Amino acid sequence: MTIAIVGGTGPEGSGLALRWARAGENVVIGSRDAGRASVKAAEIGEQLSPGDAGVPAGAETSGAENSEACRAAEIVVLTVPFQSHAETLKQLKPVLRAGQILVDATVPLAASVGGRPTRTLGVWQGSAAEQAAEIVPEGVAVVGAFHNMAAELLHREGPIDCDVIVCSDNKEAGKRVRELARKIPGVRAVDGGKLENARIVEQITALIIGLNIRHKGVAGIRITGLPPQAYDN
Amino acid sequence: MTIAIVGGTGPEGSGLALRWARAGENVVIGSRDAGRASVKAAEIGEQLSPGDAGVPAGAETSGAENSEACRAAEIVVLTVPFQSHAETLKQLKPVLRAGQILVDATVPLAASVGGRPTRTLGVWQGSAAEQAAEIVPEGVAVVGAFHNMAAELLHREGPIDCDVIVCSDNKEAGKRVRELARKIPGVRAVDGGKLENARIVEQITALIIGLNIRHKGVAGIRITGLPPQAYDN
Repeated sequence: MTIAIVGGTGPEGSGLALRWARAGENVVIGSRDAGRASVKAAEIGEQLSPGDAGVPAGAETSGAENSEACRAAEIVVLTVPFQSHAETLKQLKPVLRAGQILVDATVPLAASVGGRPTRTLGVWQGSAAEQAAEIVPEGVAVVGAFHNMAAELLHREGPIDCDVIVCSDNKEAGKRVRELARKIPGVRAVDGGKLENARIVEQITALIIGLNIRHKGVAGIRITGLPPQAYDN
Repeated sequence: MTIAIVGGTGPEGSGLALRWARAGENVVIGSRDAGRASVKAAEIGEQLSPGDAGVPAGAETSGAENSEACRAAEIVVLTVPFQSHAETLKQLKPVLRAGQILVDATVPLAASVGGRPTRTLGVWQGSAAEQAAEIVPEGVAVVGAFHNMAAELLHREGPIDCDVIVCSDNKEAGKRVRELARKIPGVRAVDGGKLENARIVEQITALIIGLNIRHKGVAGIRITGLPPQAYDN
């Protein structure tokens, strides 16, 4: 399985790439600039050691222009700023194909249009993830996930104290993305229901950013009170 | 200090009343019907034992019609269904006075108008809490809090595994409500910033309700990654 990370040179995308590469996944860093993508992929490669428990000999991290990255992948992860969200998806539309999973981690922060990172924009479709679902070709399963996990935590060593709430209208795709989330040490992934629920999960990021500013931390969230099997399906 | 709980015969209000009564606070259960309020207050009284560590001899739980309850209180907690939110506040307006704190735990669930409890309504002011702030007399400090704590957890014995995110434009009022939240065993209270952030905290409740239905649990949330002092101010 190959994972393409569109916007993979940014802090969130490169952090996810690093964690998945450590877990032995084949990751392609995507960028508008193939050269920058390759440089970032090499940087990530240097952070892996062959002794890493999760890094089999065959796992690869490479870089490519965004469209090329998507062509090679079964799972495409979108980690672009919201101001590039719709445009990037329109550009990728010709190479996306039925059967692929598009994981959207985008948050419509008001900072996208010069506002505050602690506020969100109203998105006509309800959420960035639902905007994505409107743009991608039929048969591409859109999954909202990884919104609430700070890039800084992904780039730190060690387990991450954060749950990933996964929203999708495609049950099988949601399950695959939860499995992918669980490859990051410490993470519990939970089925957050339909894609429309990404409206809420996306907004939580703005709240977390406010908590970080106010309390000088790197916040995440954990869901309490669910039975263990909620994190195991 | 006296705490009035408007809508205090409901599951959330009576749960908060029980927890605060156990902690030795004077609580007045408010209801449209003074008789029902008194019955509920007596029920709560029966659940307390004089031996409870937190119950001093002087602590009282009583019942009153909503307006009467508010007259007696320094802190008024609003736990009514959203369909009664604006109307209840308009009725209480003549008895609310500058210097009081109004704690709003209301969530604008779509269930209020026959929709799903996993979806929210758009509130013109942005949130139920901001709607409250528009209605109350000048000088009443509105604080959004306790949205994400299930009534069922409040009525159980023992500590609650949930954080309370407190939003207010009045810093002193927010601090007092965080202190009140911390009287519930297990609860950590954190400053969630301005009242407008209640938009996000209210919506989290709809997400939690969805998780409960999907995974058969009684979910709450914990914030991770903040320094200890975030829960101590």
